[in-house]
Amino acid sequence: MSLLIVGSIALDNVETPHGKVVHSLGGSAIFTSMASKNFCRSNIVGIVGEDFPKEHLKLLTDNEIDTQDLKVVSGKTFHWDGKYNNLNKAETLDTQLNVFADFDPQLCEDNKKCDYLFLGNIDPILQLRVLKQMDKTKITACDTMNFWISGSRSKLVEVINNVDILFINEDELRMLTGAQNIFEAVQKTKEMGPKLIVVKRGENGSFAYSDEFIFFAPAYPIRKVIDPTGAGDSFAGGFMGYLASVGNFEEITIKKAMIFGTITASFCVESFSVNKLKEISIDDILVRKEVIERSIQF
Amino acid sequence: MSLLIVGSIALDNVETPHGKVVHSLGGSAIFTSMASKNFCRSNIVGIVGEDFPKEHLKLLTDNEIDTQDLKVVSGKTFHWDGKYNNLNKAETLDTQLNVFADFDPQLCEDNKKCDYLFLGNIDPILQLRVLKQMDKTKITACDTMNFWISGSRSKLVEVINNVDILFINEDELRMLTGAQNIFEAVQKTKEMGPKLIVVKRGENGSFAYSDEFIFFAPAYPIRKVIDPTGAGDSFAGGFMGYLASVGNFEEITIKKAMIFGTITASFCVESFSVNKLKEISIDDILVRKEVIERSIQF
Repeated sequence: MSLLIVGSIALDNVETPHGKVVHSLGGSAIFTSMASKNFCRSNIVGIVGEDFPKEHLKLLTDNEIDTQDLKVVSGKTFHWDGKYNNLNKAETLDTQLNVFADFDPQLCEDNKKCDYLFLGNIDPILQLRVLKQMDKTKITACDTMNFWISGSRSKLVEVINNVDILFINEDELRMLTGAQNIFEAVQKTKEMGPKLIVVKRGENGSFAYSDEFIFFAPAYPIRKVIDPTGAGDSFAGGFMGYLASVGNFEEITIKKAMIFGTITASFCVESFSVNKLKEISIDDILVRKEVIERSIQF
Repeated sequence: MSLLIVGSIALDNVETPHGKVVHSLGGSAIFTSMASKNFCRSNIVGIVGEDFPKEHLKLLTDNEIDTQDLKVVSGKTFHWDGKYNNLNKAETLDTQLNVFADFDPQLCEDNKKCDYLFLGNIDPILQLRVLKQMDKTKITACDTMNFWISGSRSKLVEVINNVDILFINEDELRMLTGAQNIFEAVQKTKEMGPKLIVVKRGENGSFAYSDEFIFFAPAYPIRKVIDPTGAGDSFAGGFMGYLASVGNFEEITIKKAMIFGTITASFCVESFSVNKLKEISIDDILVRKEVIERSIQF
């Protein structure tokens, strides 16, 4: 089945203790689609400026990522400039929205019919507009961030109420609910509407929470994290891609999707930008699946 | 097989968002033995003052915890006064060593022959003295804390070099090694001598690390943590108790020990002091084992 991915496309400057890249390919829609492409057909929705290198567009089409709704307009591409001092938290040095300020996703007829939808971390108003355009989607999912929780709470709550899956990290969960205990916070969020909450815990892994079950996945042990940018989006990409490839929403499918999300995120952080994600195959992913299996089965 | 447990025995004042207790039973040897007693014969080594209530001694003997080396001397029992504002980190309001200042464990002949040894978080000099008294111990383990890492580093390193298992939390690992990445830090610690490092991550669970394998255990999902005091010690108690009950050091045994440590810690935090630990049976533990199995198997 097909997965529609809506989000930012960026040219980022990123500095970590392991180096620095300038105007490198980034953005939530990029990381998500480069992670999901190993599992299913992925269609990307986004906007870039005339400065967006042709080689990046070629990278997407070479990976059979559909770009019908990737608009190229006059102006400059969204730009984020960030620095990680300790690899756990990014410091934003500069953000230039550029053409992304006018992003108003209008889906083509093909994309309206995608079976699976992932709404990357963008303005909840835009997430709602995309949701309204979709036709008979099987499963919808969204990501968000602290900026929208504090600044656009009511619209965000409407989005959360209208999706099947919410991807969220621990700090955001606490901010959204006011609960300090993480299991209390996730239950309160669950009551806001989604069938499933996927809680991202960085180097401590993740867990999935539904009315029927809870499932914990560890982070894949990476001894040298080069750049954590895009880890959450590539987790979502692996998760949603696997879900779309199987086509059901059963407990075992969701558990395996958590593992595939974990693995795609682990590849993401081993390089800057999508440099590692673009090299890996499903075989590389399956090797890590075996390692994870041994590290949690008893 | 039998497990010897050396550590503090205390009368604590503890305040958390859920209440306050005064002069309640505590200390590393108490939490560890009350967790291990479900699995194996446990022998406790410690010191208390004349103020130590008889009912606490009775609790130990009622649970078949051997107290041959629990010395009652003139003076007051070790006292810790702590407050948790957010349940993640305790603020120490007062510490009175009292008779614990003269603690110098001298083992009786029976205890020297115990098959398994757990050295709770005490002065590394004392940990070394106990190690030297042991005769043909199968497996030795120790816990420690930031205070000894900064203040008694060389003695602590000697202890670590001489035990089979080190229990340690993430902050302590980073402090001990200087490495920020947790998997780099654990590898560096592994090279200091132990066969196995057990890393405690609080509400994010734990992992075991050896040359042959890594194993991740989630924290058991507790929605209302009453008091986290003793969680680490009761983890160690469940772990070491199960290990001693099986009598080997195979991968599958260690993995199951991680799960039993997780479960005993989950009961500990559901009440002040050992109030919950003293009530549970092996059947209660096995119910939670099934829940954990479903939450990590896929």
